[in-house]
Amino acid sequence: MERRSFLKQAGAGLAAGAAAAPALAADLPAIKWRLASGFPKTVDAIFGAAETVSKHVAAATGGKFQISLFAAGEIVPTPGVLDAVKDGTVEMGHAASYWYIGKDPTLAFDTAIPFGLNSRQQNAWLMNGGGLELLREFFKDYNIYNIPCGNTGTQMGGWFRKEIKSIEDLKGLKFRIGGFAGQVLARLGVVPQQIPPADIYPSLEKGTIDAAEWVAPYDDLKLGFSKVAKYYYYPGFWEGGAQLSLYVNAKKFAELPKEYQAILEDACAFANAEMQARYDARNPHALKQLLASGTQLRPFPNDVMAAAYKVTYELYEETAAKNPKFKKIYDHWKKFRDDQLQWFAVAENRFDNFMQATRHGTIPGKK
Amino acid sequence: MERRSFLKQAGAGLAAGAAAAPALAADLPAIKWRLASGFPKTVDAIFGAAETVSKHVAAATGGKFQISLFAAGEIVPTPGVLDAVKDGTVEMGHAASYWYIGKDPTLAFDTAIPFGLNSRQQNAWLMNGGGLELLREFFKDYNIYNIPCGNTGTQMGGWFRKEIKSIEDLKGLKFRIGGFAGQVLARLGVVPQQIPPADIYPSLEKGTIDAAEWVAPYDDLKLGFSKVAKYYYYPGFWEGGAQLSLYVNAKKFAELPKEYQAILEDACAFANAEMQARYDARNPHALKQLLASGTQLRPFPNDVMAAAYKVTYELYEETAAKNPKFKKIYDHWKKFRDDQLQWFAVAENRFDNFMQATRHGTIPGKK
Repeated sequence: MERRSFLKQAGAGLAAGAAAAPALAADLPAIKWRLASGFPKTVDAIFGAAETVSKHVAAATGGKFQISLFAAGEIVPTPGVLDAVKDGTVEMGHAASYWYIGKDPTLAFDTAIPFGLNSRQQNAWLMNGGGLELLREFFKDYNIYNIPCGNTGTQMGGWFRKEIKSIEDLKGLKFRIGGFAGQVLARLGVVPQQIPPADIYPSLEKGTIDAAEWVAPYDDLKLGFSKVAKYYYYPGFWEGGAQLSLYVNAKKFAELPKEYQAILEDACAFANAEMQARYDARNPHALKQLLASGTQLRPFPNDVMAAAYKVTYELYEETAAKNPKFKKIYDHWKKFRDDQLQWFAVAENRFDNFMQATRHGTIPGKK
Repeated sequence: MERRSFLKQAGAGLAAGAAAAPALAADLPAIKWRLASGFPKTVDAIFGAAETVSKHVAAATGGKFQISLFAAGEIVPTPGVLDAVKDGTVEMGHAASYWYIGKDPTLAFDTAIPFGLNSRQQNAWLMNGGGLELLREFFKDYNIYNIPCGNTGTQMGGWFRKEIKSIEDLKGLKFRIGGFAGQVLARLGVVPQQIPPADIYPSLEKGTIDAAEWVAPYDDLKLGFSKVAKYYYYPGFWEGGAQLSLYVNAKKFAELPKEYQAILEDACAFANAEMQARYDARNPHALKQLLASGTQLRPFPNDVMAAAYKVTYELYEETAAKNPKFKKIYDHWKKFRDDQLQWFAVAENRFDNFMQATRHGTIPGKK
């Protein structure tokens, strides 16, 4: 097979250094791949991360490596992205792995788990904490090579038609929320609802559901939830930083020239940071618009947060006891999380909290 | 000139798309560039960012684009990196732009200014807030194309031989600290000292200076400051996130094939995130070691932080009144900073503070 023999040459060329290189580039193949996003184009900050990857890869290869993008439903619907990459229906996908925890809850570590890492801590775990090696080992079961590709940061807690004043108000609450978060809240009496994005607005309007979570101000504003639910809660404690992943069919990735593999990894690194930057830069303006139109911001009450934290870590322990793959990553992750919290308590949080205090003309309490 | 005619072809090829591409790659030139780092190799988390760029660029080009690294002093000393890139002595440098505020204080925005942005907010300002466009416009005066390439996160406040209990204790304090931070602290009575890294330890030991700031636990541990100064203060409010930049001689950058330009930008994006990840992943362990060896952690007292904040923004206003270039970027930056603080107060800080509270078995006060 031509591509195989090319790969051998490429390997030899890399070992031999620059002298052998000029002959190689001429051999680099023209490739056209398809990427199935799990997102519609309207969620442009996230869909845009896949666009960035496609553009940067094309620019870095003089247009030789082309990636065509397909929005959710164009080739496969959102729930089908992982399998489409696994089976080779498409070479690539862009998804939130926690969508697929029905297959294995371990997948959630690739996105976010409740009361977990913020986006910077997630990057640290993956890039220098051993997390990415563990996840890549795990993803071999799915014939997927995963590359971090975007983060939303801490999301909002969602839109509520009525105020949540204490944990009692969660009993029987029909809340559009999925994944681990739904399981956690179910233990507190919430009735989790699975509703596609397009149906959230009418369901809230009619009162078929009492509350719904989506992302954060930039996306939430566009969907108009503020018109049908007055209270906007924070934080989305179930995703302190939701990371998206680029899935690459592992066999296809192994067949790529080493140059293209390197180019793809770096394009994803750019897209990963850029997506977080988009949300951070755009959320403030959207939040101002929401507040100006009457939205009422509310923090979740302390008893809700504390009770949710307790059942969350019970759920992890139970899951780890049943699932060795989950346990392997959880044990590593939990130790990393604890260390991060200890360090962030010092310089980072003190700095952030002081900066917040200056907004109100006050200074924070002495530690 | 061959390279010029290549560039024309490359432009045409990109416009024509993949069909025209195979002929181009064969023309991609073998290039050997030199990068002067402003850091010694011992500051490996930062020097390593330049190593990552070099490795990733080589991998993405099959070894055709080679970047040789030189540590501080090998070609030029730390204070000479900017000029060496400007004048074309080397094609590239890796530096903290705030080292050069003697040329123009505006350069500090490229790294960090006191009570400024944290590393995530800096990324947001640069990548989606218009900051990078402004800085690149500014750097044209220096014949430099700047690319963000590494961040330390919020640094520590440094090592003190005696406790700082109030602002009174700053009077006459000989503190090894430079740049804007030195100017700010001088207004509070500190006597800023300029001392090269190798001389910090003996100066602290002899008592020639009373205090010194360096980076954060991972680097500070290696220099052994804990043996000669007991009190380790936080946060380094003068650098909520210190960003390093890759400087590229602008003329040389413009002459690069578009593919190499794209590859270089993406390699820096990887290195930028990886450096922050290194510090986040390594600081916790170093901090534990320091604490175990008797280091006393102390937050700066509130009156010190509040007074420093006040004189800092007075200094910015004075500088802006005298320097139109500073004013142009400051006005844009300040508005962005204010918006970031408003948004981060909601989901992000509430999440981070709750996670911190769980460490102590307490929950944060209701907002």
